[in-house]
Amino acid sequence: MATSGEGFFEITRDAKVFLASAKARDGTLLLYLKHTSASLVIQENADADVRTDLVTALDRLAPAAAGWVHDIEGPDDMPAHIKAMLNGVCLHVPVESGALALGTWQGIYVAEHRAQPHGRQVVLQFIGSCR
Amino acid sequence: MATSGEGFFEITRDAKVFLASAKARDGTLLLYLKHTSASLVIQENADADVRTDLVTALDRLAPAAAGWVHDIEGPDDMPAHIKAMLNGVCLHVPVESGALALGTWQGIYVAEHRAQPHGRQVVLQFIGSCR
Amino acid sequence: MATSGEGFFEITRDAKVFLASAKARDGTLLLYLKHTSASLVIQENADADVRTDLVTALDRLAPAAAGWVHDIEGPDDMPAHIKAMLNGVCLHVPVESGALALGTWQGIYVAEHRAQPHGRQVVLQFIGSCR
Repeated sequence: MATSGEGFFEITRDAKVFLASAKARDGTLLLYLKHTSASLVIQENADADVRTDLVTALDRLAPAAAGWVHDIEGPDDMPAHIKAMLNGVCLHVPVESGALALGTWQGIYVAEHRAQPHGRQVVLQFIGSCR
Repeated sequence: MATSGEGFFEITRDAKVFLASAKARDGTLLLYLKHTSASLVIQENADADVRTDLVTALDRLAPAAAGWVHDIEGPDDMPAHIKAMLNGVCLHVPVESGALALGTWQGIYVAEHRAQPHGRQVVLQFIGSCR
Repeated sequence: MATSGEGFFEITRDAKVFLASAKARDGTLLLYLKHTSASLVIQENADADVRTDLVTALDRLAPAAAGWVHDIEGPDDMPAHIKAMLNGVCLHVPVESGALALGTWQGIYVAEHRAQPHGRQVVLQFIGSCR
């Protein structure tokens, strides 16, 4: 998938399409992001202000101008690695009767931590019974 | 399960009861929390002071009065989302001969990040061989 | 495995050896760390400066002299618990044709958060098809 720069990009629909194509019934969806400057997050999909504040919070926890040794890839790169470490790159979500057992307000997101748009690869796997 | 407000609530015993009822032998327990303002954490179950300090640490990382855009659900809501993002909502723990392969000092906790008591749903799944 | 004190210790090779001995083909590798003052992290394995900065970032997020209640195990212990909570102790990595499906720049690390060397136990499990 493609990101347009820093922010949260929902992939819940992609996960549903994958489960349908895999004829998934009951089990677990595993998600894995093959990058070190973006992350996978399950968070609120209702008020978009929440994602705005999550980006702000991460910027405060890992500011750009903070004397990082690793600066050859730009001022947003080292903060992006820190944010990816804090959030992580792997998730699982239970699957019940072919549907994601997400909470009412949960969505699955790729969090892009670089300033510029990037192509990001997510590996989806299903473990369980099939239709 | 029910929380009584901000803090750590151990669910290790619930996980053991689930494994017994599932007649689990060798494999992995998957835990998933269906919420965006609480999280799942594996941490020290010996000195309760550790959990007190973990709550303090999270409050420092995501303070309430910090100019969040999303404030319609109260001053503790946006910090709760940030803490849930940092800690995450999914875990796995290996199972050996029907028992959780936790480290000596490890317990499994639901971390409640809202000030008020909440009902929280955790999905438990076992993958592996059975008795 | 043994750590030499605070820092990142790569275990990607150990994971590969495990997959070979398990005759793994397609599936997922589960990793679990049995400790509460160290963590598991997937991060950049190219420029070592990144790991230096990750240690610095964690020290800033969980400083030693910050009035922690739990201080009987030394000034580095409570910060270590906080860092372990933020990073987490469980991971999964997809396996394709017997190989870890890591991204180009990804390595698997045990992050030691204590100042002194420690022995750390990681449980590796493979779910999937075998050769």
